[in-house]
Amino acid sequence: MIEHSTRIRIRFGETDKMGVVYHPNYLVYFEIGRTDMLRTVGLVYSELESKGSALVVTEAGVKYRKSVHYDEEILIKTRAIQVRHASLHFEYRAEKLDGTLVANGFTWLGCVGEDQKPNRLPPEVRELLAPYTPS
Amino acid sequence: MIEHSTRIRIRFGETDKMGVVYHPNYLVYFEIGRTDMLRTVGLVYSELESKGSALVVTEAGVKYRKSVHYDEEILIKTRAIQVRHASLHFEYRAEKLDGTLVANGFTWLGCVGEDQKPNRLPPEVRELLAPYTPS
Amino acid sequence: MIEHSTRIRIRFGETDKMGVVYHPNYLVYFEIGRTDMLRTVGLVYSELESKGSALVVTEAGVKYRKSVHYDEEILIKTRAIQVRHASLHFEYRAEKLDGTLVANGFTWLGCVGEDQKPNRLPPEVRELLAPYTPS
Amino acid sequence: MIEHSTRIRIRFGETDKMGVVYHPNYLVYFEIGRTDMLRTVGLVYSELESKGSALVVTEAGVKYRKSVHYDEEILIKTRAIQVRHASLHFEYRAEKLDGTLVANGFTWLGCVGEDQKPNRLPPEVRELLAPYTPS
Repeated sequence: MIEHSTRIRIRFGETDKMGVVYHPNYLVYFEIGRTDMLRTVGLVYSELESKGSALVVTEAGVKYRKSVHYDEEILIKTRAIQVRHASLHFEYRAEKLDGTLVANGFTWLGCVGEDQKPNRLPPEVRELLAPYTPS
Repeated sequence: MIEHSTRIRIRFGETDKMGVVYHPNYLVYFEIGRTDMLRTVGLVYSELESKGSALVVTEAGVKYRKSVHYDEEILIKTRAIQVRHASLHFEYRAEKLDGTLVANGFTWLGCVGEDQKPNRLPPEVRELLAPYTPS
Repeated sequence: MIEHSTRIRIRFGETDKMGVVYHPNYLVYFEIGRTDMLRTVGLVYSELESKGSALVVTEAGVKYRKSVHYDEEILIKTRAIQVRHASLHFEYRAEKLDGTLVANGFTWLGCVGEDQKPNRLPPEVRELLAPYTPS
Repeated sequence: MIEHSTRIRIRFGETDKMGVVYHPNYLVYFEIGRTDMLRTVGLVYSELESKGSALVVTEAGVKYRKSVHYDEEILIKTRAIQVRHASLHFEYRAEKLDGTLVANGFTWLGCVGEDQKPNRLPPEVRELLAPYTPS
């Protein structure tokens, strides 16, 4: 299993008055890592939408380890831990460029149809994500 | 002509590492003032949408006068300066509770149809906004 | 044990292209509920800071249950589940005005000194939060 | 005079319920373009701060031309129009990759000291920005 790595530079407006990244933004960074992975494997989200499916976050968690400051760069390392019938489990590590862990977390996503009810994931998703999932 | 007043408390995440409101957020506050005014006069935005119209911001400007800190409260004072055939011009003043001006600005909004082309404002809008427009 | 309730109206910019609240914003709402509770009990955050202490989020989690749309109002119901030597555990429920649960979650906060190391919570905090903590 | 170009991919959370970039975010994109230009010419903002100076936005304006959607990429083209004694004037064009103008605007920035009063810009700033300013 490999992990997908996405590089992000901290924006001024993402810091708060303590001078460090405002904590909800890690969920934004995790999403950037996830969509970057999906784009890389060829899963174009707009195509999923055009077939009437959407992915919605159903659960999320973050552990905050170290502060990160304005203009610093971090890597978001993303893995697809589980690919189920209608849901996906991702794990994320946010690291400084020297490898220091600054935060880690997870999200569960559900696939829903236009009626907002659970919908089977398109069969090609499992195949596309295989390199990033545990064997 | 009267002005509509909306009270807002500065959120932690709206500050930046200088400890004051991050400057793009004033456009967010202006929008809160504007939609609060529209709600007050009875112009329910979702009804406008259900008739196939939307209001889009076509121009915006802000002058920043004083810093505002976390947990401070400000008033957004909104006036509808012009109501045209297919566009609206709003002016805003952001003040501390003691009346100190902290920022002022304007937005132009255009009414567009489902084809994203300019669309005539519903006739009742001019009437509803009359108390907040210059005679 | 009682819970503290804070009413929030969903802002336009807090929605995403699916028309519902963008998921990281619940951590923002939880923070608003928490700081509103602390203000209510008389724990002024700026006073804590002036004594050289700060509260930092060390862990957070959210379960997403229902979608919430632009201009809807929700209640954030906050409880202080645990008050430890140098950390605090809060739980949150986000509900529609009719009581429908839309999301729930938790945060752990640590008290740190100016050196960013764990610092003992001021003794009055436990007392102030007593009404919102389990007996 | 040349312009500095910065490439940005639209994030999911930067869209609103109309499916396009939420309008205050263009001020965020302009800032990213500006700080990217300053970094490129060697003006490290943290060094400016360590000398007791800060740059604050004193005025901003945006004209919105075209909608931009999630996952699209845009270029922010930045020029330093005026470098005065204690202030800077920047202009920005946001373009699609095919050159379509989607928004343009400006910001004025003031240099302030630790007392928040106007402060002379460090002399090297004018020199560093020369390639991006009109002759």
